[in-house]
This record gives sequence, structure tokens and C-alpha cells, in this order.
Amino acid sequence: MHVFIVGGSDAGIAAALRIKELEPAIEVTVALADRFPNYSICGLPFYISGETSDWHQLAHRTEFGDIRILHDEPVTAVDVDRRVATTRRPDGAETLVPYDKLILATGAVPRLPDFLTVNAPNVFALHSMEDAFRVHAAVSSQDGLRAVIVGGGYIGLEMADALTRRGLAVTLLAKTTTLMPTVDPEFGVVVERELAQHGVAVRTQATVIGLEKISGLSRVVEESGERHDGDLIVAATGVRPQATLAAAAGVELGIDGAIRVTRRMATNRASVFAAGDCVETWHRLLERGLYMPLGTTAHKQGRIAGENAIGGNREFGGSLGTQVVKVFDLAIGRTGLRESEAVQYGFNPLTTDTEAPDHKPYYPGARPLRIRITADRRTGELLGAQILGDWQAEISKRLDVLATGLFHRMTVDALLDLDLSYTPPFSTPWDPIHLAAQDWLRTSRRQLRRGSTPTT
Amino acid sequence: MHVFIVGGSDAGIAAALRIKELEPAIEVTVALADRFPNYSICGLPFYISGETSDWHQLAHRTEFGDIRILHDEPVTAVDVDRRVATTRRPDGAETLVPYDKLILATGAVPRLPDFLTVNAPNVFALHSMEDAFRVHAAVSSQDGLRAVIVGGGYIGLEMADALTRRGLAVTLLAKTTTLMPTVDPEFGVVVERELAQHGVAVRTQATVIGLEKISGLSRVVEESGERHDGDLIVAATGVRPQATLAAAAGVELGIDGAIRVTRRMATNRASVFAAGDCVETWHRLLERGLYMPLGTTAHKQGRIAGENAIGGNREFGGSLGTQVVKVFDLAIGRTGLRESEAVQYGFNPLTTDTEAPDHKPYYPGARPLRIRITADRRTGELLGAQILGDWQAEISKRLDVLATGLFHRMTVDALLDLDLSYTPPFSTPWDPIHLAAQDWLRTSRRQLRRGSTPTT
Repeated sequence: MHVFIVGGSDAGIAAALRIKELEPAIEVTVALADRFPNYSICGLPFYISGETSDWHQLAHRTEFGDIRILHDEPVTAVDVDRRVATTRRPDGAETLVPYDKLILATGAVPRLPDFLTVNAPNVFALHSMEDAFRVHAAVSSQDGLRAVIVGGGYIGLEMADALTRRGLAVTLLAKTTTLMPTVDPEFGVVVERELAQHGVAVRTQATVIGLEKISGLSRVVEESGERHDGDLIVAATGVRPQATLAAAAGVELGIDGAIRVTRRMATNRASVFAAGDCVETWHRLLERGLYMPLGTTAHKQGRIAGENAIGGNREFGGSLGTQVVKVFDLAIGRTGLRESEAVQYGFNPLTTDTEAPDHKPYYPGARPLRIRITADRRTGELLGAQILGDWQAEISKRLDVLATGLFHRMTVDALLDLDLSYTPPFSTPWDPIHLAAQDWLRTSRRQLRRGSTPTT
Repeated sequence: MHVFIVGGSDAGIAAALRIKELEPAIEVTVALADRFPNYSICGLPFYISGETSDWHQLAHRTEFGDIRILHDEPVTAVDVDRRVATTRRPDGAETLVPYDKLILATGAVPRLPDFLTVNAPNVFALHSMEDAFRVHAAVSSQDGLRAVIVGGGYIGLEMADALTRRGLAVTLLAKTTTLMPTVDPEFGVVVERELAQHGVAVRTQATVIGLEKISGLSRVVEESGERHDGDLIVAATGVRPQATLAAAAGVELGIDGAIRVTRRMATNRASVFAAGDCVETWHRLLERGLYMPLGTTAHKQGRIAGENAIGGNREFGGSLGTQVVKVFDLAIGRTGLRESEAVQYGFNPLTTDTEAPDHKPYYPGARPLRIRITADRRTGELLGAQILGDWQAEISKRLDVLATGLFHRMTVDALLDLDLSYTPPFSTPWDPIHLAAQDWLRTSRRQLRRGSTPTT
């Protein structure tokens, strides 16, 4: 059997590795559009910042056993009926590759505003290794540079951090009211403060409408008329699924143009599976597909696509959109639904915001953290959680306790029963998670007693 | 209604607070044998070490609202039929206190070998604030002191750390083959190495049989004949439930002499509840009572005893024995059953040991951690987990993800579906938890294929 995988980033390589783990005799080919198999795209900001000195370190792995890797060999067409893929070799020649099973792991591409084009010499995206090399070279070219970042999501935030570390004067423009729209505005303003404290000029509700070229630099124009000069313009305006190959092959697309897949990662076409940033992702809580490209999800989906392509029958457990970002000295994470999403999907949410020290204050180094708990007023069911605090306050894995609770659809009340670890340097006898749950329950009871349902 | 609570440490105060939270009008009295309500006993080693400079900081709280606190007023008897307790006031007078509901939160007392008595001038336990003051005074009395710690459990380890920080020459004697018998020997030896690297002389399999007095110091005598001189002898040989009052009142005792309670924290006597280090604790996985005194459990049980004493009907969710300790630069934690316990309780466990970096090595500061997964070979059900690593590698809350999985009786295979947070500074796309689960599954499959069931 020959499994042909289009794309060699997280999902594609995870699929290939899983197949080889289960059935070493199966022939596996991975076709890459570039020459960087399984690089950590999430690591690009740290390469730019200099925290990661050598880009080679970004490779998740460099050994692929007997998986056949085709470098710089994009797949230009697939004939699903005849099970043949067409690739374009580095020398330009087209090759036909017959296969038994196909896995599409074509990833995503930057979603840029019309007037921003990464072909312009000083406009940059940050999605591929080549992007990273371009930014790195530009940043290293001279001192005193100014950067304008368009986009207030986590990539924009990480780039603001990275470019500030490299000594650039950074302006960040976000179209949203607060930064990091994946968390509630109450946390977004803290992130904004963190950026400001490190010298980043932040503008929110900034709708960028154009780009002017002025002798070697670019000027970003806001709808308001405000203009921002930059030697570098970094577009961190999100991504969209790379699904043109799939569409041309007759594979059905769904939300946001992502490939429609079952929880088995099967497409509508026989013998064609898909995984990663190019597919719809099953949301565990909402029990429906959404477009939520995340590296963690890509690895999981790729592994399942690989297993099922060779006859397995595993279902993807679903995503909760669990995510964490480090911005300067702050860690911010979220899992499940934020308040406005919970409303949007028909829940009746109550969200509380609890501050607690990360560990007993009598032990040195205690720092306050904040936990937001979103749960349904009627059922008490946990819908989502957000945590924010010092980056060394175990924010990420504390969030994961809540993500694990959410995975099991726990109520807020049941969180109190969790037997979590405690020693004064690491926690409090009731962990901040417990304290946040108690806070939610108290607030909920108080509001019930008053017969009102205001939002906090 | 009047609720009378015997004991003002974690369980007693948690009960009192819960009652006042639910029904502020109910009268609540807490009788203390000393004058330190709700102090953090877990913090004593850090007060000794100097990391916590002022003992007053150890108070979990100092405000108790209208909860009536009786200081230095031990309860000498309870007439459960007539609902009257007898206390001995600081002036020696006995008082009769009528009550409607009684909560016993009498805690534990050190379990000392016969020849060790804390009345001896240079022998110390570390269980109460008074103990801590004695040790603190002794340690501060002069330079160049030698300490001998008897006991290799977590208090012994924390004291070895604390006394070393204070400049003492420390010898630690443990009767077990490896230190910290709550984790597998493979981790115990790492703890031993950590102590040795910081200058602690460690002797395992050391059965202490006596104590000799020699002009101002004590000499601890091992069965082997080996002798260890110490200016301070610290007994960290565990605790036993303080249940004499309960027994005298006709309250049934169970395992290890602990008060037998239902999951509602009710005893066999009407209107008498009990919680904390004096009771049997329901083990969530084993579904039976065990004696497992832990502060986190005491808080939870106290809260439930308070709620149920005034008419509530909440059940204790059960303990998994989740525990973490910091020893010098190392954090070690465990939840659920270790390998030998799993065997003891009739499971057919397989334990694997996985090393992984705590976060992507291309981001500075990555450190290896080790995860041991114990699960049943037949069912794949997770039975326990242990983690060890640098104290800043989010060991404690990573352990709690596994504790939360164990709470829900997950299989190892299902752990792979958990949507955990990732960014290069905090984790890897597959968190070390996922990697440990994959390792367990691979090992299990390999052994199944070979038809053998060796232990690792």
C-alpha cells in the first residue's frame, strides 16, 4: 500500500509517523511545497526575536526513517477517481504519483487585506520559513528601524514582543476594541497595558484601509486618517485554509472554505483524508465543525488521519480551542468559549473574574493571577475559562486542568472536588482554580437570590 | 442552632467558614488547643529555612468574622447523647458547652518511635506552631550545628532542604530502600541524588533503634551499629489520627485508628461529623477509606462537614493522594497509585517512565522532566502518575492535569485526546503528558505482541 501525503508540516508528518508506527511496511510519501519538513511555525517569532539563535533548531525533527520526503515538489493536481497525484519537481517537470490513500495536509495561507501584499519589499507575513528569513534579514539590516504590525491576535502580539526585543520601535494596530479577541476584553486591556509598558504603541479599533509608499518606507493608513510610518510592515491578519487542490479534486469544502471532514478525518471522497489547518475542526463542546487552525490540533488530527487511512477507526476527540500565548512577562490562555461566544451559541453564561496568588504569599515570588470562569447559569456547566498572570506562574498547565475539566463537561461545582496538588511554593490549599469556582458559585447564587440575571 | 467545632486548623476553619457562608445566622464556635487558628502547617519548613521571615505570615487568615474562636481551650470530653462538650479554659476551669451539631477536626499527632520523645531538649517534631518555634530557636542559637533527620517522607525532605539552607550539616536517615516512599524507587533515587548534591548525607534502609545522650548532643543509633551525632534530632516519622476524644465519646474508629466517616463526613453518632487528619479518607479510585492525611483534603472535607452539619447533603469526591513536594531545585509529585500500590490492590499494572523537555528546546530554559504512568494492562485504565523535574517546569499543575484525568477514570489512550495548551515557552505540541501516554501505549502494545507481561 502507498499512502501519499500532501504537506509536510505538523499534520502531514504526524500522519506519516503514525502510519510507520503502526505498519512499518506501508510505503509513505510526503510531498512538500518547500524544503522545510516539520518545522515549528509557532517558533518563528522566537527566531525573529533572537531567543532562538539558529533556525535549524526550529525543526521538530530531522530524521524521518524510511518516509519518502519530496522537497520543493508541490502537488498541482489530484485525480481522485484514478488515484493519481501530479507533482511539479524542482526542475519543473511534472510527475504522476499513483497512490492507494491520500491525506491532504495542505495547511493555511495568510489572509491579507487587498492592499497588503507580501510581494512588496517591506511588507511581511509570518507563516513560512521563507517569511521568517525575510523578516530576520530585514530586522538585522540596520538599527533604529520602525515596525508597524497589523493585527492584534496572538501572532501580532508575539511579533510585537519579538521586534521590541530586537530594538525596533513597534506600533501595533488592531481592528478590535481590545487586543487578543480570543479572550474577554477585560483580559485584552491587560495585554495592551503589558505591551505599552514595554514601549509598544498600541492602537485598537484601527481599521487599516491602505498602504502608501514613501522613499524606502511604507505608511499604513487608518480609516480615521491616522498614518503610521514603518520600515517594516508585518501583516498578522490571520490565515485561511489552503484548499484549492482539494476543491479542484472534488473534495467538499465547508466553513470558511476549509475541507469538510468527519471526526475520522475522512472527506467526502473515498480514500481521501485531510487534517490540520486546511480542515474544519470538530468543537468538542459545540459539537460542530469550526475553522480553528492550531498546531496542537494539527498534530492530533494528522495522527488520526494516518491511522484511519490504513484501516483504523479512531475519532478525533474534538478541540476546545485551548491556547496560550506569552507576551513579554505575561502568559494569557483560554479554553472553551469566552463570554460573547457562549452567548452567540445560545448559552446563558455568567462569567466571573477571580484574582488569587499563584502560590502561598509567605513563600517568595508569589504573583497574582486572574481566572475567568464562564459557565451556564441554568446548568452550572463549565463553558470556558481564561487565565492571565506572570509567565512563570504555571498559567499554561493550570489552564489545562480546566481544559481537562471541560473535556469531561464538568460543572463548576464539581471542580471543587478535584484533588489538585499543593505545596506552598506551587499553589494554595484551595488552588486558584478552586477559588475561581467558589467565586462563580457565590456570584451565581447571589444573582439567583436576587432573581436577576445581569452580566458581570 | 449552635455548631461546635473541635479543632481550628484547616478542616475546622473550613467547616466554620462554609457554615457562615451558607447560613450567616447560625452560631459557630471553634475550640482550639493552642492559640494559632488556621495556620499553614505546610509552611513550617519555610519558616525554619528563613524563606518565610515572619511566622505571622503563615496564617491562612486572621479575620474570622463572627465565628467564635476559643483559644488555648482544649476539649476534654463530649457527651454525644446530651450534646454537651467540656472544655478546659486557659485558667484551668472546665466549661460545659451545649451544642446542636458537633464537628470533630482534631487533626493528627506525630507518630514517634518509643525512644524519641519531643520532650527531650534537642529532639524535635514539626507538627505545630510550638514545634516550629522550638526548632527555629534551636537553629538560630549558634553556628556549625549538625542535624539528624529521621524519616525520608516529604516532611523529612523539606526539613533537609530547610536546615541545609540555614547552614546546618544535615544527615537524613530513612528506613525505606529509597527516599519518598509515596513515589516509585526510580524517582526516590533522583531525590536522593538531589539531596546529596546539596550536601545532605543520606542513609536509606536505616532502622533507628535508639538515642544516646552525650554532653549536650544526641547520638542516633542504627540497627547496623552506625551512629550519627546531632545537635538537633528531627523526627519526621509520620503522624497518626488524634481520635482519643472521639473514641471516648463512642464515635467509631476505623483504619489506623482514624474516625470512620461516610462520604457525607458523618460519623456513626447522630449529629457528629468529622473531617481532616483525624478521619478515614475516601479514595476515589479504590472506593474505600484509607488514612491519608493531607491539607488539601482537610479543607475539602471540612467544607463538606460544615455544609452537611447544617442540613446539606454533599458527598466528598474522594482523594487521589495527589501530592507535590519541592526539594532544593526539584519538584516531585504523584497522584493515584504507584506501581507497588496498584499491585497490592489487585490491578495488573504496567508503569512506563518517559523523559521529555518541559517546553520546546529552541526556546531558552528548557529542562527535562520525567513522567511515570501507571495503568492497568488489561483495561488501559490510568491508575496513577508521577512527575519529577525542575521546580520551575510547571510540574505541579501538569500533575494536576493527570489528577483530573484520573478523577474521570480516563484510559491512557483517551489522554491523547486532551486539548492542552501549547506555546514554545511553555510546552511542546504534544505535551509531555501526551508523550508519556504514547510511550505507555507503545510499551503495552509491544509487550502484548510478545505475549509477555514483564514489569518495566
